Amino acid sequence: MRVYLDNNATTIVDPIVKDAMEPFHSQMYGNPNSLHSFGMEVRPYLKQAVDKLYDGINARDKDDIIVTSCATESINWVIKGIYFDKILNKDKNHIITTEVEHPAVIAACKFLESLGVKVTYLPVNQDGFVDASTVENFISDETALVSIMWANNETGAIFPIKEIAQICRDRGVLFHTDGVQAIGKIPVDVVDMGVDFMTFSAHKFHGPKGVGGLYIRDGLELTSLFHGGEHMGGKRSGTLNVTGIIGMGEAMRLAKESLNYEGTEIRRLRDKLEDTILELPDTFVVGQRDKRTPNTILVSVKGVEGEAMLWDLNKAGVAASTGSACASEDLEANPIIIAIGSDSELAHTAIRLSLSRFTTEEEIDYTIKIFKDSCLRLRDISSSYAN
Amino acid sequence: MRVYLDNNATTIVDPIVKDAMEPFHSQMYGNPNSLHSFGMEVRPYLKQAVDKLYDGINARDKDDIIVTSCATESINWVIKGIYFDKILNKDKNHIITTEVEHPAVIAACKFLESLGVKVTYLPVNQDGFVDASTVENFISDETALVSIMWANNETGAIFPIKEIAQICRDRGVLFHTDGVQAIGKIPVDVVDMGVDFMTFSAHKFHGPKGVGGLYIRDGLELTSLFHGGEHMGGKRSGTLNVTGIIGMGEAMRLAKESLNYEGTEIRRLRDKLEDTILELPDTFVVGQRDKRTPNTILVSVKGVEGEAMLWDLNKAGVAASTGSACASEDLEANPIIIAIGSDSELAHTAIRLSLSRFTTEEEIDYTIKIFKDSCLRLRDISSSYAN
Repeated sequence: MRVYLDNNATTIVDPIVKDAMEPFHSQMYGNPNSLHSFGMEVRPYLKQAVDKLYDGINARDKDDIIVTSCATESINWVIKGIYFDKILNKDKNHIITTEVEHPAVIAACKFLESLGVKVTYLPVNQDGFVDASTVENFISDETALVSIMWANNETGAIFPIKEIAQICRDRGVLFHTDGVQAIGKIPVDVVDMGVDFMTFSAHKFHGPKGVGGLYIRDGLELTSLFHGGEHMGGKRSGTLNVTGIIGMGEAMRLAKESLNYEGTEIRRLRDKLEDTILELPDTFVVGQRDKRTPNTILVSVKGVEGEAMLWDLNKAGVAASTGSACASEDLEANPIIIAIGSDSELAHTAIRLSLSRFTTEEEIDYTIKIFKDSCLRLRDISSSYAN
Repeated sequence: MRVYLDNNATTIVDPIVKDAMEPFHSQMYGNPNSLHSFGMEVRPYLKQAVDKLYDGINARDKDDIIVTSCATESINWVIKGIYFDKILNKDKNHIITTEVEHPAVIAACKFLESLGVKVTYLPVNQDGFVDASTVENFISDETALVSIMWANNETGAIFPIKEIAQICRDRGVLFHTDGVQAIGKIPVDVVDMGVDFMTFSAHKFHGPKGVGGLYIRDGLELTSLFHGGEHMGGKRSGTLNVTGIIGMGEAMRLAKESLNYEGTEIRRLRDKLEDTILELPDTFVVGQRDKRTPNTILVSVKGVEGEAMLWDLNKAGVAASTGSACASEDLEANPIIIAIGSDSELAHTAIRLSLSRFTTEEEIDYTIKIFKDSCLRLRDISSSYAN
């Protein structure tokens, strides 16, 4: 049996999404900016797809949703756009983010630091959460942007976005949230939350890789990352990735439609898996269960190296992760466990299990068996764990 | 009959390319950076695809080919990377390009101008060509980059890239060429040409939209446009667009394989179409035929508005263009015709016809008939043309 429990890294493309994209490769292949029928015939399908994006995050018609190539692009666009709009030769010079953001946010901020920008990386508490009042304490007259994720990729921790957005609005500071891990897992309403910018990525919610988006609240300007042929109202140039947009639209529709299932059935399967793991002695799951996305478990298994566990699971066909997929090539300590203040041993024993709506009860039952066996076997041979 | 003669705007995805991508949506969907089997099983296919890119442009193993989301991204990366590497707080402050570059180059340069960078936009001669010696005359100690396209999207004019690259190397200036319109049409050998950076885009050579590339010669540094999770050796972050990379690799293989067919059979069809059009009185094709890509004709039909001709052709099922697809929504004078110094009337009468290896003799015969009929009809009702 093969079980894919690494859905926070990437997801299977829903076969319905794949079918929706199919005609746009070799049948309706025109450039939608062209004026002839090959181009024009694509446009209504594109519009439908974009409408699904608006519906999925409850954006208003007057807001912008700009299609990009991935969340990393969207994030770089916001952070570097703000650099040109508010910092370079302007009067702001400070960005606030957290220690547990996606590497794209951290690396873009580090790059701005190399140009002289001040960046505050807020710590998280032992549950992996950021407190809204902490954000407020660090805002100054120099602050141009606050960038804090909606849900954490490793723990599933859901951050107090609405409160943070309100604080930023009150203080006249722009607020960006990386919504990559929220869409398809919890309700996402950008207007109710009051965010200025929100990043998302199709391949995290059963859409194709290579396409993402940026929500921009009505009235906000943002210097482009891609200058060029004035696509997307001049905000993001480049020939439209038609199949990608069609796929992301359909994936967004399905994600919204599946939210209830995700919040009940997938949550039940996650809880079943988590309960069983916690029955094992000396195991520890990061973050309160009701404050996490319903599909995620980050667990430390005392005495067992995360990589050893990963390989044991993998051998039995179960795919998990020891941290952000982006960094999986580096066998290092899990940064979020370091961030929550736990000791280095715990950080080296972390395993992330992330479900999706394609996960079945049979797969969870199988994983429970494999996980238990692996834990026993590895602790038996562990030099640091006394049974 | 429907005839697609707008292949310089975008191309049909070769069904062989589509089939190659198919398994990577919903079967082999892992993130190739993941360490489990779902991720690992993708890697050999990715490597094969990237090898095809190296082979297609004759890059050396030690050079970099970085996959991006489109040529617009690659171009913005080079131009803005150079800004951070050589200009901002550094001793260079000048870029040389031409008046007839793709809008991505022009717009990225205009953006840098707004930041105080000096940009020289070289003119072209009446055939739409840039002279290498002109480039040399404008290089100064302040010049950080020369960016000149390999082949022009509107006229097909092939620029003297090897000479320009040599001049830049002799003068110690970096050289980027936009190779978007060259690949699949003429032999592309980055090493023989001696370029430092070359941009390309899959959807211009029967690959998918939403994926492109940047060749970076061995040893060159370039500040990233996307900072993040250290994908692509840290040069371009973002989860790999697996289907896009597989598709672009296969499209590159087929493009190279088809070069001979493009240079003989497609050239013959193009010449047949061009000869017939030139038999009509008061028609004018831009650029010497043997100095153009074998698939392109930019023709002015005196007394006939380009848009009127476009609609006539479209009504009969023939797709053409009045200029760069990127700007097709603006019914303006063709910029390249302005650039070559012709009068405004000529600029308003331009039609671009661009073939591909999927173009058939039957389609060309049909187009010839439709084009002639349309020319006669529109000249009959033209206020500016006396028969």
